[in-house]
Amino acid sequence: MRYDVAIIGTGPAGLEAAITLTIRKKNIILIGKKNSSSKVRSAEKIDNYLGIPSVSGDDLARKMLDHAASMGVEITEGRATLIYPYGEYFGIQCGEEMIEATSVILATGVAPANTLPGENEFLGRGVSYCATCDAAMYKEKKALVISYSKDYEEEAEFLKKYASEVIYIPAYKEDEKNAAALTDVPGISVMNAKPLEIKGGFKANTLVTDQGEIQADGIFILRDQISAASLVPGLETEGGNVKCARDMSTSVPGLYAAGDIAGAPYQLIKAAGEGLTAALSAVKYLVEKK
Amino acid sequence: MRYDVAIIGTGPAGLEAAITLTIRKKNIILIGKKNSSSKVRSAEKIDNYLGIPSVSGDDLARKMLDHAASMGVEITEGRATLIYPYGEYFGIQCGEEMIEATSVILATGVAPANTLPGENEFLGRGVSYCATCDAAMYKEKKALVISYSKDYEEEAEFLKKYASEVIYIPAYKEDEKNAAALTDVPGISVMNAKPLEIKGGFKANTLVTDQGEIQADGIFILRDQISAASLVPGLETEGGNVKCARDMSTSVPGLYAAGDIAGAPYQLIKAAGEGLTAALSAVKYLVEKK
Repeated sequence: MRYDVAIIGTGPAGLEAAITLTIRKKNIILIGKKNSSSKVRSAEKIDNYLGIPSVSGDDLARKMLDHAASMGVEITEGRATLIYPYGEYFGIQCGEEMIEATSVILATGVAPANTLPGENEFLGRGVSYCATCDAAMYKEKKALVISYSKDYEEEAEFLKKYASEVIYIPAYKEDEKNAAALTDVPGISVMNAKPLEIKGGFKANTLVTDQGEIQADGIFILRDQISAASLVPGLETEGGNVKCARDMSTSVPGLYAAGDIAGAPYQLIKAAGEGLTAALSAVKYLVEKK
Repeated sequence: MRYDVAIIGTGPAGLEAAITLTIRKKNIILIGKKNSSSKVRSAEKIDNYLGIPSVSGDDLARKMLDHAASMGVEITEGRATLIYPYGEYFGIQCGEEMIEATSVILATGVAPANTLPGENEFLGRGVSYCATCDAAMYKEKKALVISYSKDYEEEAEFLKKYASEVIYIPAYKEDEKNAAALTDVPGISVMNAKPLEIKGGFKANTLVTDQGEIQADGIFILRDQISAASLVPGLETEGGNVKCARDMSTSVPGLYAAGDIAGAPYQLIKAAGEGLTAALSAVKYLVEKK
């Protein structure tokens, strides 16, 4: 089964794209968090979303999700870790699944400011963004997990089912760092260290931290946003954002971007507007493809 | 008194720009219709404005106007007919007034598909978009008015206070054509004809219609939207729309465009998003100007 359009991200850009494509009767898959973007939800008060004055991020996210649901839009909970443009269609790695779509809209939010030195270089060679996908490759080996959110503790546990040893570095906020769920798991050791650089030969084998170097057979970097350049091989970026034309097309034919990942200003109504534009550009692309 | 930013148009792009600039504490003037854009109001049902499902154009326009009003945004009822970039600032002709602003956001909606042959050529030389501004130049002369809306009957009456003779061509919908308010006014004759071309020597002096040629000393063309190229001398356009970069900047420094006039898709949430982007670009321009 191949979708017409895969939309990656459930913030305002992704939701608006999903609504627009649903109205246009396209066969879509919307991949992301079921409760929208955490950036939207954490906003205390939003004053500049025209038509909805003085609203909390939580309330606005709810209105957006309800709107999408009322149009029949469904969210596939998941995280795309690699999008491969095959020319005729895209392959989207999402957990263990490979999803196919003719066109893709990238609406994953602003990319992380900094990747680790060595991260991009070793990606696919000892560095992975997805424990669920690559765990089996580390059977009886030592794996290291750099996690940017408590949500990924589960992935580390899954990884331990294969790996003989897992070192878990919680790179999240101080008050969330006690990684309680993991301290009792045999074979997983939680280590408080600041990751500085990934090194290796042909494959990555060392993480440099402020506590010294750690050897490992594989390094997993788990964070909500993956840099656009890592997500889509060959995609042109500009200061970390995807380079787009005004119709939200990118350097990869059939791939569109919308919202924060498409550049500043990082504002909700701008993201929603771009979601609509990207969706209509994808519709045009589908017509031309036929 | 010079404003920081003049916003032309009170549809979603103009209102969102006004809200954003108000939050940024800029000194603005918002020029347009007090009841927002007639295009918004006339929409029967809008399904794709994220967060406000299944809403009538009238209701959505009301929500937008209420939102703007709640932030202290005021609308100056009026119509800009010429925007002149002086370099340091802009002069905006609005009725009899000349308004000054350091930056301008053009959000007047989609430009008319076609101007009359000769219209752009003779603009300022016998062709005018504003009876209120130029009436005095036609003292004891014969003026011709091509009006695209009943709203302009008043302007024709005003013109008659100066001109010795006014010929009024109602170029609007059949059922509104009876131009009742004007039939009793001495010196104004209502003529049903289809304007085809403006001709003249150095100055325009003839309107060609399907009923034959009409001589006049001046030709007034009154319509809600003025083509971007006529509104701002020297502004680069593309298929009738203003040519913009992704930050909504145009070929004229300090001038930004947003909404339908900045190009397709002609959709409300896209217009609002661009209004925000144009506003923040204008803020940046003001900082650089200092």
